Amino acid sequence: MEKSILITGGARSGKSTLAERLALRPTGRAVYIATAEAYDAEMEARIAEHRARRGPEWHNLAAPLDLVGALEASDGGDPRLVDCLTLWLTNLMLGGHDWRVEADRLVVALSRQQAPVLFVTNEVGAGIVPENRLAREFRDAAGWLNQSVAGACEAVFLCVAGYPIKVKPNEHSF
Amino acid sequence: MEKSILITGGARSGKSTLAERLALRPTGRAVYIATAEAYDAEMEARIAEHRARRGPEWHNLAAPLDLVGALEASDGGDPRLVDCLTLWLTNLMLGGHDWRVEADRLVVALSRQQAPVLFVTNEVGAGIVPENRLAREFRDAAGWLNQSVAGACEAVFLCVAGYPIKVKPNEHSF
Amino acid sequence: MEKSILITGGARSGKSTLAERLALRPTGRAVYIATAEAYDAEMEARIAEHRARRGPEWHNLAAPLDLVGALEASDGGDPRLVDCLTLWLTNLMLGGHDWRVEADRLVVALSRQQAPVLFVTNEVGAGIVPENRLAREFRDAAGWLNQSVAGACEAVFLCVAGYPIKVKPNEHSF
Repeated sequence: MEKSILITGGARSGKSTLAERLALRPTGRAVYIATAEAYDAEMEARIAEHRARRGPEWHNLAAPLDLVGALEASDGGDPRLVDCLTLWLTNLMLGGHDWRVEADRLVVALSRQQAPVLFVTNEVGAGIVPENRLAREFRDAAGWLNQSVAGACEAVFLCVAGYPIKVKPNEHSF
Repeated sequence: MEKSILITGGARSGKSTLAERLALRPTGRAVYIATAEAYDAEMEARIAEHRARRGPEWHNLAAPLDLVGALEASDGGDPRLVDCLTLWLTNLMLGGHDWRVEADRLVVALSRQQAPVLFVTNEVGAGIVPENRLAREFRDAAGWLNQSVAGACEAVFLCVAGYPIKVKPNEHSF
Repeated sequence: MEKSILITGGARSGKSTLAERLALRPTGRAVYIATAEAYDAEMEARIAEHRARRGPEWHNLAAPLDLVGALEASDGGDPRLVDCLTLWLTNLMLGGHDWRVEADRLVVALSRQQAPVLFVTNEVGAGIVPENRLAREFRDAAGWLNQSVAGACEAVFLCVAGYPIKVKPNEHSF
């Protein structure tokens, strides 16, 4: 198994399910690092739904902001699954943090990890340009973050209708 | 030819053209199962445009809701092309039907088909999260439906700028 | 190197960076054909950012409308990079030009080029259907334009998180 994997895709493309399956492969146990914060009932329902799908083989951590801290605290054992980078970015931006600085810290921390790390993230830039300026800034930031983490990961997959397309490495890299 | 194929992609990515070419390959004839209903002039123009591209080698059926019935009524001969799943989902949701029940019925019906079936569907989840709650529910439902039908199909393609990327099966399945 | 390449992808998916790297490969020099027009400060910042990334090995041309003229004027030497087709389409539509006629002229002109041409374009059709009619027309037009140019190019890549997936040619073409 690669030591660091990024799984990206659109909404409901099966990213989390694939990531969970991969994360459990080495030892049958894994650490789930949730970046979600329940701002409203809709988000609460999503979190509950995700948690219900996972069983006792998962150790759950919450890291809405301090993702680097959660990775360092959980290193040395089972694989870690970070779900997801776009919610982490949302939390950073809403909290007034500099996401570029945090993204750089994440990339540096990733290079120090012993146990595998899997990241789930979202494709948000393949629709029409949003009219809302904040939405445009968010989709730009999400694109940069995905590129940055993809560059630091050994493998990258794009998930479509529940199935992965290998993006990195592939025979067309240039 | 695979007995069941899902072709997904963004708007105007060439999905229907590819699906039509594939559907005609075995016998030079095929059944077109349209799920579209013309609610307004814009939709009417789209339907007319699609129909104009197809010739007399097509037998046309309309199935805005009863897709399972149309598949069963047309089985045993030429390939069937269902265009498209996202409009079928729209019709189900607008009509107050339980799309999960209908999706399960579709998957069961698919396993009983003798003649090939091709489905066209849309990628709608790779843009920014919609502000409109109904739009969010629709894109979640579309993602689930695509995963569900993809899981039941022998082959899945993602269409980009008129060209297909094979998503299932591929060497990276896990 | 292929004589004509289309690189598509979502916002901030690394398309321009990849296209620039490819364009410089043959001779270490290239022509940058910018289609952007700075309508506002946000767009000006984007143009400045792109230009700052490029060095003196680039010869810069502006072609907000007359892309065919720019290709013909720059032919016979270094590779040309057109960045990007979706902004060119925007300019054509805003200026009241017939983009279909211009797209056909582009495809014809492309077949006459001696030096390589790389096009950058955007995936804009994989989000939810826009409520705004003009936005729907634009995303349809962008999809048609991408298909049209992809059909005329020797190679097509989809860019995801900074990495290319080869779309054309691939072993699944049909």
